[in-house]
Amino acid sequence: VKINSGFFEAFYDHGVTSFYRLVREAHEHGLLVISDVKRGDIGSTAKLYARGHLEAPRFRDVDPAMIPDAVTLAGYLGRSAAQPFIDIAVREGKGVFILVRPSDPGADEVHEFGDSRKFYEHMAALVRAWGQGPGLVGECGLSCVGAVVAPKDAVSTAALREAIPQTPFLVPGYGAQGADAGACRPCFRPQGDGAIVNASRSVIYAFENPKYSEQRSDGWQSCVAAAARDFAEDIRRCTSARPAGAGAMHESR
Amino acid sequence: VKINSGFFEAFYDHGVTSFYRLVREAHEHGLLVISDVKRGDIGSTAKLYARGHLEAPRFRDVDPAMIPDAVTLAGYLGRSAAQPFIDIAVREGKGVFILVRPSDPGADEVHEFGDSRKFYEHMAALVRAWGQGPGLVGECGLSCVGAVVAPKDAVSTAALREAIPQTPFLVPGYGAQGADAGACRPCFRPQGDGAIVNASRSVIYAFENPKYSEQRSDGWQSCVAAAARDFAEDIRRCTSARPAGAGAMHESR
Repeated sequence: VKINSGFFEAFYDHGVTSFYRLVREAHEHGLLVISDVKRGDIGSTAKLYARGHLEAPRFRDVDPAMIPDAVTLAGYLGRSAAQPFIDIAVREGKGVFILVRPSDPGADEVHEFGDSRKFYEHMAALVRAWGQGPGLVGECGLSCVGAVVAPKDAVSTAALREAIPQTPFLVPGYGAQGADAGACRPCFRPQGDGAIVNASRSVIYAFENPKYSEQRSDGWQSCVAAAARDFAEDIRRCTSARPAGAGAMHESR
Repeated sequence: VKINSGFFEAFYDHGVTSFYRLVREAHEHGLLVISDVKRGDIGSTAKLYARGHLEAPRFRDVDPAMIPDAVTLAGYLGRSAAQPFIDIAVREGKGVFILVRPSDPGADEVHEFGDSRKFYEHMAALVRAWGQGPGLVGECGLSCVGAVVAPKDAVSTAALREAIPQTPFLVPGYGAQGADAGACRPCFRPQGDGAIVNASRSVIYAFENPKYSEQRSDGWQSCVAAAARDFAEDIRRCTSARPAGAGAMHESR
């Protein structure tokens, strides 16, 4: 599961307490947790952010289960801002996903900047470079340094997939944000892995969708479960090369 | 004062509790507080981040004094990511500072991207545009939407100052990061205002500096106070057009 920190930070330190509790609860259910924090600061500060959001606790009274398995990062302050997280990912078998092509159309005014070469292509090349080196790439050929890549048009998405073949993609935009499984297909490698597609609102708020609420009178949990199953099945169908292909993160560990 | 959230988040929710307490304590001393959080997410999530980090509390049992007066933001997800913060800044007389040219040399691999026009110039133009409109620019001619601009070479810094004349600069890099007051001078407007220079490590850790520790046997507080005075005096000298010129944030309120 991917948990977005913003929705918890809205409730100050109380929300942050709940965030860590939810990570622990997800771990108790055997789930891997991507913490969507999009942090990005210069190297000396990035080290501290990495302690709070990815590193195994240095205190005996802090439950290691409340620390996520992967984080999203803003890499716009350069390599030194990402390196402390990457070092931990290598050492502890975790992962990072760095923003390369966000899903929001408003992000295009930044990421489509450039003449012959676009800014998002530049960020992709940096993320590729940061993810190479001893201990960074797993047996499956995927790095622990991934990229957040929204499915835009099929041609440019396929080109990006080809340009950074060792980089696992975390794919936002499915469901409430408008992308379907077909649009996500170019984010996967030819063999059907290399991407984790994320759906948030279309699953969490399934009880507001007549498709689910009209058929299920047993509460919102049942609607959410049905929407999650439909979503997973939809993605599985589009990655047909390997019908039960697991996500990139799992394989890179 | 500018407080960097990363150093508190390293201690999980306990650290975040301390962060809010420190903001309140600074307010009790009559200080304005810039919260250095560098948040940046798509519009729907940015609204929630803005609630936790800038907006007046919606709960009666939350002390408004623990909410900062301004925040730093990463504007790389475009206007919609900054807008919720800007709306609050206008409504509540607060401010935002958006990353345009960070101080860390490692950030250059991102911000110097581009051929005829550099990426940092593109970000500067966006921040300028986001900061214009009804209610955004104060009587002094400065907007509530500022930019984080490190003092690099004098020529390019002066060009940036001229390109976005209504944008107050938050200037990192002084002291421990290597810049002196002369390097900061081009960040100010000709009349000597329009910039807030920040010094962190050179002031906080003044007790490690023989210049202060050898002359003062009365503890670290005295060293910090002396370093803060020296720093303020150094900046005041270089903005000689208005000897007692207040910072931009104060004037734009």
